[in-house]
Amino acid sequence: MPGKKKTIKRYARRVDKLESKVKKLKARLKTGGVGAEIAPAKSAMVSPFAPARFPDLPEIDGVRFASAAAGVKYAGRTDVMLAEICPGAALAGVFTKSSTRAACVLDNQAKLAGNPVSDQGAAILVNSGNANAFTGANGQASVDAISGKVAETLGLPASRVFTSSTGVIGEPLPHERITNVLGELKTKLSPASISDAARAIMTTDTFPKGACATVAGEGGEIKIAGIAKGSGMIAPNMATMLVYIFTDASIAPDLLQKLLSWQVDDTFNAITVDSDTSTSDALILAATGKSPAAPLIEGSDAAIAFEKALRAVMTDLAKQVVMDGEGATKFVEVQVTGAQTTADAHTIAMSIANSPLVKTAIAGEDANWGRVVAAVGKSGAYAERDLLTIRFGDIVVAEKGWRNPDYSEEATSAYMKQAELVIGVDLGLGEASKTVWTCDLTHRYIDINADYRS
Amino acid sequence: MPGKKKTIKRYARRVDKLESKVKKLKARLKTGGVGAEIAPAKSAMVSPFAPARFPDLPEIDGVRFASAAAGVKYAGRTDVMLAEICPGAALAGVFTKSSTRAACVLDNQAKLAGNPVSDQGAAILVNSGNANAFTGANGQASVDAISGKVAETLGLPASRVFTSSTGVIGEPLPHERITNVLGELKTKLSPASISDAARAIMTTDTFPKGACATVAGEGGEIKIAGIAKGSGMIAPNMATMLVYIFTDASIAPDLLQKLLSWQVDDTFNAITVDSDTSTSDALILAATGKSPAAPLIEGSDAAIAFEKALRAVMTDLAKQVVMDGEGATKFVEVQVTGAQTTADAHTIAMSIANSPLVKTAIAGEDANWGRVVAAVGKSGAYAERDLLTIRFGDIVVAEKGWRNPDYSEEATSAYMKQAELVIGVDLGLGEASKTVWTCDLTHRYIDINADYRS
Repeated sequence: MPGKKKTIKRYARRVDKLESKVKKLKARLKTGGVGAEIAPAKSAMVSPFAPARFPDLPEIDGVRFASAAAGVKYAGRTDVMLAEICPGAALAGVFTKSSTRAACVLDNQAKLAGNPVSDQGAAILVNSGNANAFTGANGQASVDAISGKVAETLGLPASRVFTSSTGVIGEPLPHERITNVLGELKTKLSPASISDAARAIMTTDTFPKGACATVAGEGGEIKIAGIAKGSGMIAPNMATMLVYIFTDASIAPDLLQKLLSWQVDDTFNAITVDSDTSTSDALILAATGKSPAAPLIEGSDAAIAFEKALRAVMTDLAKQVVMDGEGATKFVEVQVTGAQTTADAHTIAMSIANSPLVKTAIAGEDANWGRVVAAVGKSGAYAERDLLTIRFGDIVVAEKGWRNPDYSEEATSAYMKQAELVIGVDLGLGEASKTVWTCDLTHRYIDINADYRS
Repeated sequence: MPGKKKTIKRYARRVDKLESKVKKLKARLKTGGVGAEIAPAKSAMVSPFAPARFPDLPEIDGVRFASAAAGVKYAGRTDVMLAEICPGAALAGVFTKSSTRAACVLDNQAKLAGNPVSDQGAAILVNSGNANAFTGANGQASVDAISGKVAETLGLPASRVFTSSTGVIGEPLPHERITNVLGELKTKLSPASISDAARAIMTTDTFPKGACATVAGEGGEIKIAGIAKGSGMIAPNMATMLVYIFTDASIAPDLLQKLLSWQVDDTFNAITVDSDTSTSDALILAATGKSPAAPLIEGSDAAIAFEKALRAVMTDLAKQVVMDGEGATKFVEVQVTGAQTTADAHTIAMSIANSPLVKTAIAGEDANWGRVVAAVGKSGAYAERDLLTIRFGDIVVAEKGWRNPDYSEEATSAYMKQAELVIGVDLGLGEASKTVWTCDLTHRYIDINADYRS
């Protein structure tokens, strides 16, 4: 019986794997200093998509960064970042639509609405380890305490201090730990420290995320540099996780906000790790106006080039968030085409990208395209079973309501072993399309999330 | 450092666990006959909620059951069940709303619409191991082949033969394996064989599911007996997984359908294992009219009692499906109260019940109520953060937008160790409410689904 042989092989492989795990764990336990021994084990769990090193982001004239270890929750790492932005900068932002959003999100929204540009400077203060979300009146009190102290330290009005907090929900934020390091942060401020800032805002991220672009403006170059963090509770709704993008462009705040908002649906709103939308998602974009290029005018070539570059930076950061999704071993692009409306295409793409059955099949390198069919069917968006075409990469696995007569399990299974996969679904109904990005669902996701608070 | 000590302890526990696993696996490998040795290992993975034995379901006069091992996909177990229903029985059904639903579902819907009651008999034929879904024209051809042969075997019109198929999607159904065992099935038909039928329809289920009730009719007792299968791709949409319920009630088919449809929202539509709606969900209810009780008249005491009993049987089966959800170790009731509308309450309850972060926290026995807050916030239904009250069992963990001042991590953590949990969310807005049931998300779910087809 081939079934039995397969089972024996599988069990033998499992024994091998478990034995080597036991060996490693025992070695680690024997060593006296467990802390030091544990660190390499953790770093062994870095996303397979982590870049070899953080990208070289250009310095943005008018922005300085600093980070520090405040001990908000994590020990032995930085957990607070400060960005100081020059007077006259234009600011824009998009935020989570969650009805239970955190105090700092509401505070940022109010401040941005009232005061997008100012002849005074601005600052962004972010801590990791505690989300300061669902903390009642204490939430706003902490935001006020931090904003006030940052304002005092940097000589700004508090209304120009934007804050974000990311980490566990519902725990009181020990904000004095943050305000205690503001002096240190001020002395450290440097235009070159953006990579340290990207590290300080990480939670379950396994690598810091950065992206940049340069745009040919009229009379000079415009630079864009951004950082982001993931990597669980990622299913942004009209907003994003924590992202900070800086540019030296000279641009009016309303145009900046418009250009930003236009990109969100196809970048951060087009990713999902686990279908759980956060209470704290925030993207803030600051334009310092320090570039030698002329101010950007709506519709000009330079503005169009800027929009394109901004979109590229946002797409890059969004994809990095998915690549570092909790437990991710596969990066999956879901392309839905032939829909009647973009909304339908988006709904179906997200239904596939969020399906635990699709995501576990991908983790198991199983070409289980039937689960893609089920995910299309359950979405509620308009689809006709017998018009569907489903592709894995370039392989047409199914068309006209059934498996492709030339379907090869071998070829499709070989494709599934790739780290980056494309699932294509053509609905055969119209011209609308949508591409979203997701990752697989693995044991590591459960390891991380069954024990996050402790 | 207490953190280090905790880590050492955790690692030591992991080593212990892994070593005992290795030991067990090695013992199993050493034995020559692996098949026999593997069986107990699989049975060790039975849901912790599995009842000690299948319930004693009453025989329903007018219905006979048989099951057989046709080898559709599984070896060494039954995988086809036949139910023969007497002439004059009323039939009703509800089915998945999936736009990619299987041929047998469409076929059943057409047959029920045209012919709910007949002076000829009826039959239900169900196979496990292959869903016959997304199999193009072959899908209906297989349904016709099976229906035709069942009709011939039992002396019925094919329009009175209802079929269901459950298992992998997109594989051609080897329907001749099923028609080959029809002779055997016919000779085995017995009113006492419902428990064998419940076993034959299982896929990844770890226990067969049955429930029953008796109702005092006018002039005699009415009996209800039902069976169901789960246990992945469970997020019914206005329908259910595979469920067959039989009663000897005498009742008009339109009233039967109405009573059935009324119960669906609060029973099978109120459960979720993994948010993935199946292509094959079907519930068929047959009433033979053989009870000595008088026919049920809408609004009569007996009809009301029957409706209540039917609802109890459906609720019982629905809960069993969740208790046997793939990988489940916890059974969770989510009670949402104080909503403005029932639709809002349902949306929020399902948002919590489907949240991977809530489900992994439950698996880890972590009282991470902040994830419940996030799930409320992301749902899109109307909620006000500062009016929320959240309970774990009888423990009020949060109210008025923050953690209960009397919150005890110890007491809440102790509660989380229970196998059956209640998460209560009061929105503080209105009178509408909804209760749904779900299970936790564990490593076993990924084990099962990363390797389902192979």
